[in-house]
Amino acid sequence: MRAVDIIRKKRDGRSLERSEVEAFVRAAADGSWPDYQLSAMLMAILLRGMSPEETAWLTGAMARSGQVLDLADVPGPKVDKHSTGGVGDKTSLILAPLAAACGAIVPMMSGRGLGHTGGTLDKLEAIPGFRVHLSVDEFRAMLRDVGAAMIGQTAEVAPADKKLYALRDATSTVESIPLITASILSKKIAEGIQGLVMDVKCGSGAFMKNRTDARLLAESIAANGRANGVRTESVITNMESPLGRAVGNALEVRECIDVLSGGGPDDVRDLSLELAARMVRLAGLTDTLTAARTQVRSALDSGQGLAKFRAMVERQGGDPRVLDDPSRLPAAPRQTMIAADRAGFVAALDAEKLGHAACILGAGRERAEDPVDPGVGLILLARVGDRVQTGDPIVEIHFGDEAKSAAAKSLINQACIISDEPPATEPLIVEVIE
Amino acid sequence: MRAVDIIRKKRDGRSLERSEVEAFVRAAADGSWPDYQLSAMLMAILLRGMSPEETAWLTGAMARSGQVLDLADVPGPKVDKHSTGGVGDKTSLILAPLAAACGAIVPMMSGRGLGHTGGTLDKLEAIPGFRVHLSVDEFRAMLRDVGAAMIGQTAEVAPADKKLYALRDATSTVESIPLITASILSKKIAEGIQGLVMDVKCGSGAFMKNRTDARLLAESIAANGRANGVRTESVITNMESPLGRAVGNALEVRECIDVLSGGGPDDVRDLSLELAARMVRLAGLTDTLTAARTQVRSALDSGQGLAKFRAMVERQGGDPRVLDDPSRLPAAPRQTMIAADRAGFVAALDAEKLGHAACILGAGRERAEDPVDPGVGLILLARVGDRVQTGDPIVEIHFGDEAKSAAAKSLINQACIISDEPPATEPLIVEVIE
Repeated sequence: MRAVDIIRKKRDGRSLERSEVEAFVRAAADGSWPDYQLSAMLMAILLRGMSPEETAWLTGAMARSGQVLDLADVPGPKVDKHSTGGVGDKTSLILAPLAAACGAIVPMMSGRGLGHTGGTLDKLEAIPGFRVHLSVDEFRAMLRDVGAAMIGQTAEVAPADKKLYALRDATSTVESIPLITASILSKKIAEGIQGLVMDVKCGSGAFMKNRTDARLLAESIAANGRANGVRTESVITNMESPLGRAVGNALEVRECIDVLSGGGPDDVRDLSLELAARMVRLAGLTDTLTAARTQVRSALDSGQGLAKFRAMVERQGGDPRVLDDPSRLPAAPRQTMIAADRAGFVAALDAEKLGHAACILGAGRERAEDPVDPGVGLILLARVGDRVQTGDPIVEIHFGDEAKSAAAKSLINQACIISDEPPATEPLIVEVIE
Repeated sequence: MRAVDIIRKKRDGRSLERSEVEAFVRAAADGSWPDYQLSAMLMAILLRGMSPEETAWLTGAMARSGQVLDLADVPGPKVDKHSTGGVGDKTSLILAPLAAACGAIVPMMSGRGLGHTGGTLDKLEAIPGFRVHLSVDEFRAMLRDVGAAMIGQTAEVAPADKKLYALRDATSTVESIPLITASILSKKIAEGIQGLVMDVKCGSGAFMKNRTDARLLAESIAANGRANGVRTESVITNMESPLGRAVGNALEVRECIDVLSGGGPDDVRDLSLELAARMVRLAGLTDTLTAARTQVRSALDSGQGLAKFRAMVERQGGDPRVLDDPSRLPAAPRQTMIAADRAGFVAALDAEKLGHAACILGAGRERAEDPVDPGVGLILLARVGDRVQTGDPIVEIHFGDEAKSAAAKSLINQACIISDEPPATEPLIVEVIE
């Protein structure tokens, strides 16, 4: 089975055999095809597509290209949530402790932010002392004792994905539903979970800008998760404007603590509760979604979720005092304000532009190797649909560097649209694919 | 201008700017894009195509990626012929001396055979002592003194093509009209010629198996030669069966000597004369094709062509005595025969299968680094359309190794089809694109 023959077959739009897909994935993991053959194959897959069978084989082969966690010695049902990435998307920090408080085991391996989107690991590291790199033994012990742990992917997980992802990034072969599906699911399947809730973000701040693409990806992930033995549901959610009011690592942690303490913005709370409830039901802890919603709500209201989060922070080396006194979190030295330049209704707070503005301030990174500044970011003082008067504060900027603040301001001004008419309200949860 | 952005643009089917095409070619020559980006771009070009403008820019940039010969100090019009490759395709050895005898300067740089197709350099090297590697100064002096020289491409010619061709071969990105056009023409334009006759072979033994593909390539080469300042004509010629009777290096040289001496098979002579006449007219040595045909025919009949070939052989270190006594050419130690297993008409002598049979005998190579055996090959004792009786000899096999002969025989048996009805006659020259 020569590489050129497999590449030619896909180039000509024919379906590959399972053994051919597996040869490609094995070659990515063990280096037996040179990079130029892998990238030619990636471009052929992007332009010719893959059948559902091929995508399922690709997903499974990539998951098995490295270590797949065996959590058989951890009692309880293992479930997780994953998001395609957005701006202000902080639900993981809320739903993992809520689901764990309901009896689920949440072995969450996450990534870092890139470009305008944030990353769970960066947010967690805003908590002083928090360690996102645990050994597999520490991870396993923590799942047994606490029920949830949130760490970075180990080098042993899905090495074929690491190789292919780096090549895709450098060869404009990222935007392919089969390749995205396999990349996301391979890492989740490797967690040894039995259920997955996939949050497919849709809108300006998301990777998927429109409903059609978002639905294609949501369906592909649900189908391929199931084809590989993981009960998977996809939830398509709105990402035209940021989720919640906070964008930036420590600011978002603070918002999560607010939500777990019974406050915080409605949208963050509602989405976190819904995703956690779906995890609890997929875990088989309740028979119906309604019962799961009741359980999760009760874990929030009773403070069990916050207690679980406290246990997670402590166990991963973080300072638990931030939960009682969020002023202990890192903070930017200076603040400034963007005010409404006219009266009317806030019609748009463009998530992509606000995400880029936060990235410019130092909350995110353009290149994977760049550091982030935990304290900087934005607080949205007005939300889409709010009525404002001229001079009303819209966005609070938390910054350190004056020049960066000026650059961010210009983007924020473009992001905030005020109009005479109230905007059409858009639902937060657009569609569910079960 | 980032590589990923140029790749993305072509991936999405958009037309590249001239500067973007040139950046790609420069990167191939100087190594500033890694191989995996070059190969992703090649796959995107193959699947998305290129506009006429993009192909012309690609061709020009590849020609200028290395040394372009300046033959201004060699008086006379410089013209050349190139073929896409076939089986028994030996016209270069005949038409170069004929055109030179008519006053054209023929600075021919050729390649070696690969797979079932032969290569001019391999044929020339069957002449004892013949050197295909001359310095540029030797080449130039020979063009001035003799009017024609036939050498291998120097390392300085079109380095971007060398790089891209090796990648295309390894990534199934060979079969693209824009890439083939640029690859062929870049090396010819670098010869510093003003006119080019392109022989596009069409049929089982050719790279282009059908008329549609052959015409696309023929038109693309004619248009892109002209767009880069070279008067170019394409001639589509039949390659369902081998050209002439001889397949194999020394056997083909012998056939060329026969033609230049006034004998040889009609098809080899007729095609060589026609291509040489078109070179002479493109060189501006005659006003009409009719006048050019008369001149070239007269160069053949008068022996001037043979004399010119003798001068070329002598000047390139070859033993000129082979022209008078072809038995001095290398010969295979043994011969055997394939005979007709029934009476009827020879309906097909499949060029691809016969080419592979010759390759198995050692006349060609599967990998670029393999040596060839100059003496082995095939002589077609019957041609398509001939009436044969059971037991009549069809193909004579010249071989050294019994096992290779047996393997070749089985292919030759498949290649030779005898039927009750005479086959439809197909013209040798299918179409001309001027």
